[in-house]
Amino acid sequence: MDLQAVNSMSYEQFLDIFGNIIEKCPIITAAVWSRRPFSSFGGVEDSVYDFIESLPISGKEGILRCHPDLAGRELTSGTLTMESQQEQRQAGLTSLSSREREILTLLNTQYKKKFGFPFVICAKMSVKEKIIEELNARLQNDPSIELLKGIDEVKKICHMRMEDILCKGSPMPTKL
Amino acid sequence: MDLQAVNSMSYEQFLDIFGNIIEKCPIITAAVWSRRPFSSFGGVEDSVYDFIESLPISGKEGILRCHPDLAGRELTSGTLTMESQQEQRQAGLTSLSSREREILTLLNTQYKKKFGFPFVICAKMSVKEKIIEELNARLQNDPSIELLKGIDEVKKICHMRMEDILCKGSPMPTKL
Repeated sequence: MDLQAVNSMSYEQFLDIFGNIIEKCPIITAAVWSRRPFSSFGGVEDSVYDFIESLPISGKEGILRCHPDLAGRELTSGTLTMESQQEQRQAGLTSLSSREREILTLLNTQYKKKFGFPFVICAKMSVKEKIIEELNARLQNDPSIELLKGIDEVKKICHMRMEDILCKGSPMPTKL
Repeated sequence: MDLQAVNSMSYEQFLDIFGNIIEKCPIITAAVWSRRPFSSFGGVEDSVYDFIESLPISGKEGILRCHPDLAGRELTSGTLTMESQQEQRQAGLTSLSSREREILTLLNTQYKKKFGFPFVICAKMSVKEKIIEELNARLQNDPSIELLKGIDEVKKICHMRMEDILCKGSPMPTKL
């Protein structure tokens, strides 16, 4: 993809392509469009991260709450976004044993009860066994630490989604 | 609906019901959940408005950019949210004459070109003739005024959507 072309996009075209780099938060992509022209694709990402950092704690918690559970109800009901579906499949979360599913459901429930937001991890950079291990470990953290960890993972997911879009010559619009 | 029940909701239940009171911005509802318990339903709305006001200008522009054009491509392609579909239908925007459609398309294009966000109006409180008149008039505003006007309309839409939810005993979850 050509940076010049991206800088010339209408906000609608920009949203069609980058609207879900932060899960179910097209407002962030839409806000970042105001920052054109970008001097690099990294500049798009940096603007997204700046916007996230400018949000109050409740806004950051809000971002996490827009994320689905791993191997949760959206996966079962087929209502995951295209990107989440792909990421969860790649990490092996669509082919769990019944024992793994049981453990993950239990840990997800404990995590949400403790923190008030879901466990977010860049699934594409991991595998199901490590994800369960990490969830178990992060469950011990303090809420303030876990908010930072979750937002760090959101940024990793954003980076991977940007790479995916840039690798494809002509990305498919995201259905939001 | 019972306020006590709302205050006891998980963030997932809260999002299922109130997730689209600001069009395609579930992050705002998700952030506001952190403010429980609410002492009234007005308190939910006030928290939403506080959150919007805390955003930088680009964030407010981002909210407007998450809104569809009136009688635009999402209406034609059937991809409007349930709420927008209903609001546009009630205002008569699904039954435009070809002349009205032509005028609206032209004015929408001029508006987006001038302001970099779509014309947002609480369609449910209006009718197509008045909407076209208002669009024509607001096209003359300065961008800073128009951002304020747009956000005011977002709040009116939010208020109407809240009323709709509260009038129904058991609201249908919004599909985001």
